[in-house]
Formats: sequence, structure tokens, C-alpha cells
Amino acid sequence: MSGFRHVVVFKWVEGTTVSQQEEVAERLRELPGTIPEIRAYSVGLDAGLSEDNADFAVVADFDGEAEFIVYRDHPAHRALIKEYIAPIIASRLAAQYAL
Amino acid sequence: MSGFRHVVVFKWVEGTTVSQQEEVAERLRELPGTIPEIRAYSVGLDAGLSEDNADFAVVADFDGEAEFIVYRDHPAHRALIKEYIAPIIASRLAAQYAL
Repeated sequence: MSGFRHVVVFKWVEGTTVSQQEEVAERLRELPGTIPEIRAYSVGLDAGLSEDNADFAVVADFDGEAEFIVYRDHPAHRALIKEYIAPIIASRLAAQYAL
Repeated sequence: MSGFRHVVVFKWVEGTTVSQQEEVAERLRELPGTIPEIRAYSVGLDAGLSEDNADFAVVADFDGEAEFIVYRDHPAHRALIKEYIAPIIASRLAAQYAL
């Protein structure tokens, strides 16, 4: 499988509710309808199997690096980060790599 | 697509070489041959698009949570962590979620 994968995990600030997280997930899941460069997209709240896990993860696949950059800089993505993610984020760690 | 996804990102200690990272990637890519519960597995060194990115990521898919736990606790996986990952790890952040 060729392509380019973006992986990001988030920790939210203390007091972040499940419904806030589910709203982020819902909004993110709308992005493939707005950004055609997204080839595959999965979002999830951590299942709680390990205490030192992150709270949330996104895995997004693209045909290549250029398509990822379109997504990264897309106004719909930037607006979503500003409105739904920035207010509750404690930490974020990402990586991108060729598939 | 149903299933269960494990996402983990790593930062390595200062001085970790690319060849050390590639060895970790190579060893990890052998695991699907040893652990049949793994349904899909992708490993990669970060492409360097952002300075505050992690260095390395793994995305592994399973039919369900139980299969992930077989992988997590599998002797081959544990041995690989001990021999190749533990000596160079600076930080690690993971999440697991239902697909």
C-alpha cells in the first residue's frame, strides 16, 4: 500500500468531557467530505486500556506528502482546530511517514 | 471498517541514528509474520515536516480489543521492545480505539 500517513495523538486538559471529545471526533469525521485529498481517515477516543495513554488519536492517509500538506493547511481543518481542539488541548504529538 | 486500532508515537534519545531506527522498523515489520492477530501494520520514521513531531510511529489494526492484547503481551513483541526500543526511547505516547 503506497501513500503517506499522518498520525497524531492528543492529551486533553483536565475536566475535558466525553461529549467535548465526541464533538471533536464528529467534526473531524466531516473533513473527508470537505477535503478530497484525504484518502482514509480514522478518529477515536482512547479505549482506556492503559493509564499513561493519550486521550485521542487521528490517523489520516493521503496519496502523498503534497496531499497531506493540503489537508494540514486547509481552512476547514485550521478552523476546526481553532474552534474545537485548541480550547481543550494539553499536549499533541504527531508523525508523518510514507506507507 | 470495523476493528480495533493501536497507534503509538515515539521520540528517541539524542544521538539515535537513522540505522538504529530502521532496525526497529525492520524488526517490527516482522511481527505480523509471528503474531497472526495483527490484521494490518504500518511503521515509519517521521518525514521531518514539522520540528516538534515525534520521530517514529506505528499503527496496528486488529479484529478486536482481545487480539490487540495478544499482540501487546506477545513474547516476540515484548522481546523486541526490550532489545531494540527500550535502549533508545525518550518518550512514547499511545492510544487505542475502535474503528
